[in-house]
Amino acid sequence: MGKQRKLKLGANISGVGNSMSLWRHPDVANDASVNLAYYQQQAQIAEAGKLDFVFIADGLYINEHSNPHFLNRFEPLTILSALGAVTSHIGLVATLSTSYSEPFTVARQFSSLDHISGGRAGWNVVTSPLEGSAQNFGKGKHPDHALRYRIAEEYVQVVKGLWDSWEDDAFVRDKESGVFFDSSKLHTLNHKGEFFSIQGPLNIARSRQGHPVVFQAGSSESGRDLAARTAEAIYTAHETIEEAQQFYQDIKGRAAAYGRNPDEILIFPAFNPVIGRTQEEAERKYQEVADLVTIESALAYLGRYFEHHDFSQYPLDEPFPDLGDLGTNSFRATTDKIKSEAKELGLTLRQAALRASTPRGAFVGSAETIADLVEKWFTEEAADGLVIRTTIPQTLNDFVELVVPILQERGIYRTEYEADTLRGNLGISVPANRYAKETVQQ
Amino acid sequence: MGKQRKLKLGANISGVGNSMSLWRHPDVANDASVNLAYYQQQAQIAEAGKLDFVFIADGLYINEHSNPHFLNRFEPLTILSALGAVTSHIGLVATLSTSYSEPFTVARQFSSLDHISGGRAGWNVVTSPLEGSAQNFGKGKHPDHALRYRIAEEYVQVVKGLWDSWEDDAFVRDKESGVFFDSSKLHTLNHKGEFFSIQGPLNIARSRQGHPVVFQAGSSESGRDLAARTAEAIYTAHETIEEAQQFYQDIKGRAAAYGRNPDEILIFPAFNPVIGRTQEEAERKYQEVADLVTIESALAYLGRYFEHHDFSQYPLDEPFPDLGDLGTNSFRATTDKIKSEAKELGLTLRQAALRASTPRGAFVGSAETIADLVEKWFTEEAADGLVIRTTIPQTLNDFVELVVPILQERGIYRTEYEADTLRGNLGISVPANRYAKETVQQ
Repeated sequence: MGKQRKLKLGANISGVGNSMSLWRHPDVANDASVNLAYYQQQAQIAEAGKLDFVFIADGLYINEHSNPHFLNRFEPLTILSALGAVTSHIGLVATLSTSYSEPFTVARQFSSLDHISGGRAGWNVVTSPLEGSAQNFGKGKHPDHALRYRIAEEYVQVVKGLWDSWEDDAFVRDKESGVFFDSSKLHTLNHKGEFFSIQGPLNIARSRQGHPVVFQAGSSESGRDLAARTAEAIYTAHETIEEAQQFYQDIKGRAAAYGRNPDEILIFPAFNPVIGRTQEEAERKYQEVADLVTIESALAYLGRYFEHHDFSQYPLDEPFPDLGDLGTNSFRATTDKIKSEAKELGLTLRQAALRASTPRGAFVGSAETIADLVEKWFTEEAADGLVIRTTIPQTLNDFVELVVPILQERGIYRTEYEADTLRGNLGISVPANRYAKETVQQ
Repeated sequence: MGKQRKLKLGANISGVGNSMSLWRHPDVANDASVNLAYYQQQAQIAEAGKLDFVFIADGLYINEHSNPHFLNRFEPLTILSALGAVTSHIGLVATLSTSYSEPFTVARQFSSLDHISGGRAGWNVVTSPLEGSAQNFGKGKHPDHALRYRIAEEYVQVVKGLWDSWEDDAFVRDKESGVFFDSSKLHTLNHKGEFFSIQGPLNIARSRQGHPVVFQAGSSESGRDLAARTAEAIYTAHETIEEAQQFYQDIKGRAAAYGRNPDEILIFPAFNPVIGRTQEEAERKYQEVADLVTIESALAYLGRYFEHHDFSQYPLDEPFPDLGDLGTNSFRATTDKIKSEAKELGLTLRQAALRASTPRGAFVGSAETIADLVEKWFTEEAADGLVIRTTIPQTLNDFVELVVPILQERGIYRTEYEADTLRGNLGISVPANRYAKETVQQ
């Protein structure tokens, strides 16, 4: 990427948090997951820190064992539309499943969000790992992992096709002549594939970004392949820099093999920074949060990744149980990792559950230490950017106040937004309309 | 309803307008349908006028003959979420089809909008009149009119059931004890009906309104019946007060027959006020807009109601053609009316098309005249409220500035919002949760 390469940053806003028990912390608003003021404040902090985007994860199935945040949270497109109205530069990325939605509606809602925000929308394509989702959408059976990814690939093609329904200059709107649009620049998709038959055209113009930015979040083999073919950014997770570097090389290599420019597919590992004035303070902050987790809730949290498996049936202080294939049809990359780590490190069930429920990662320390680690992951090509997850209250605020200025001083992070679109800030080009005769000016 | 009865008002925000040619008017922003600033301004004007709600209509199929506003407009839930973030009291009502969407997602998105707006969401249930919609959703055949209404009825039941997944006091969030929710107040719907199998629970709490307010917009026999059984407000259209009174009596009667309190189902005819300083000025304004319509675009506009029928094949100045059953499976109430009026008034095709494309209605005159008409429709039980449609530029602004003060002076319209929820302002009670043991305090 050469000397122009600049670090990108995102923030995963997740209400009362991704862990089972963060909501119990005195500094957390215990209704944060459905609190508009909290989401607005987080988005505004992120924008003050010149972050590229906020990110809203999602899920389509809950039961009484689910993580508090999953039980009762905003739906991503509606909350991001609300945030679009009170921000001006930050990107707005929503997770939405290709297994349980209608491509016409999804194309429309993301395009509408892109129009509302003046070109700041992003779609994180997921295939829905949770088996139970099928029951909320009147489907008999949750499609298996490979099938979900085949559906996803066709689905993304359909959505991109619908986004091209209108060429950029289709709407003439000449009052004098009475010509509202140029009908030669209106295109009907007429898609007929294995899973979808969708006619079009879409009833909304192409937005400033051409297409909202396409993220992808699966890290399994099928997930990587889908990403390398169709995504412009990847949301992933790795505990070590070596693992992240392998993933980075793998994806860039796959993209190149598919004839794509590897610079146009950005890799975003999530990380859980724990920021203190000193290493000790950071460790103390981490422990404070880890101590909030009861073993019961840690087992429930672990269970969700394994198709809501009941882990309370096993002895806590014996080696992590042999689960066979369990988990391979849900969060495959995560479950494979939990199994292999438990084996390699010789973890008991209790240790594995607590480890999963309060992810610690490598980013625990002073602002300077965190900045060093971020710089290292970026310059050593483990990441094009990082997505901040809030394991500790006030993390985003601390990161923006304490770490961002250091990164700016070192010249690896922006001091002003380069653009007011998400693509513009990420440095990803606007896709040409497949029907346009000449290249669209960017 | 006794002496407490107060007029309600809504505003249908529709970008470049519902007519074919309003966008050509010098006072209209020709990109208004995808212009956030325009929508925000309209919502803020409506809120300044203490209106009950803004209303966003919708459609799921376009072709090159469609009305300019339909070709390129915001998707309702996303734009209303954006408006929710910049308003504080006005209701936010979105049209969404039960024929081409997923009840779990629709329940979630409306509930999320209700949480975002602090209890101001409303859902206008429609069944999608346009035949072509099926092709955008991979369905072979658009379900016929009666079937669509049977689907809609079950659909609304499912959505209401999902909205009751959590009792109002289910989320305890006690940090000390670590109890986030009371599992006895979490309910799984397990709906298995003729058209839908939906398990639940919904992954968002009941909102302040309990359920977002349910509107219904069909005026055919099946539409009236669905409304009388399931709706809390009806969006309708009538050219004469007599017709509106008949409709009003009919709906209130049907609701009572189904054991409902007729005061809890409000009737909202749409109207197209044309406001001048004098009657002559109002007539001139109307004519100015009517004159923008070419006969070609009027025929295309008419055609959309009749399954995109090509009216250019008939002689313009001969009697309106005999169309047989055409139109009965799309906008039935409207097409029946166009046919019967053409016959009764002996209209030519040209006259019928121009009449349909720039609806005039009865509300043309000075602010005083408009206020008289509004008062008459309200007090003589043709309406519980009216929804302002913009046939003439600046209509909403003129109405709020000139007509609202007269209605307030006469004591039939609020000078301050009674509440900050849509239900509160409409005077409709919060529905009890079907699972709750005791009556919910309202």
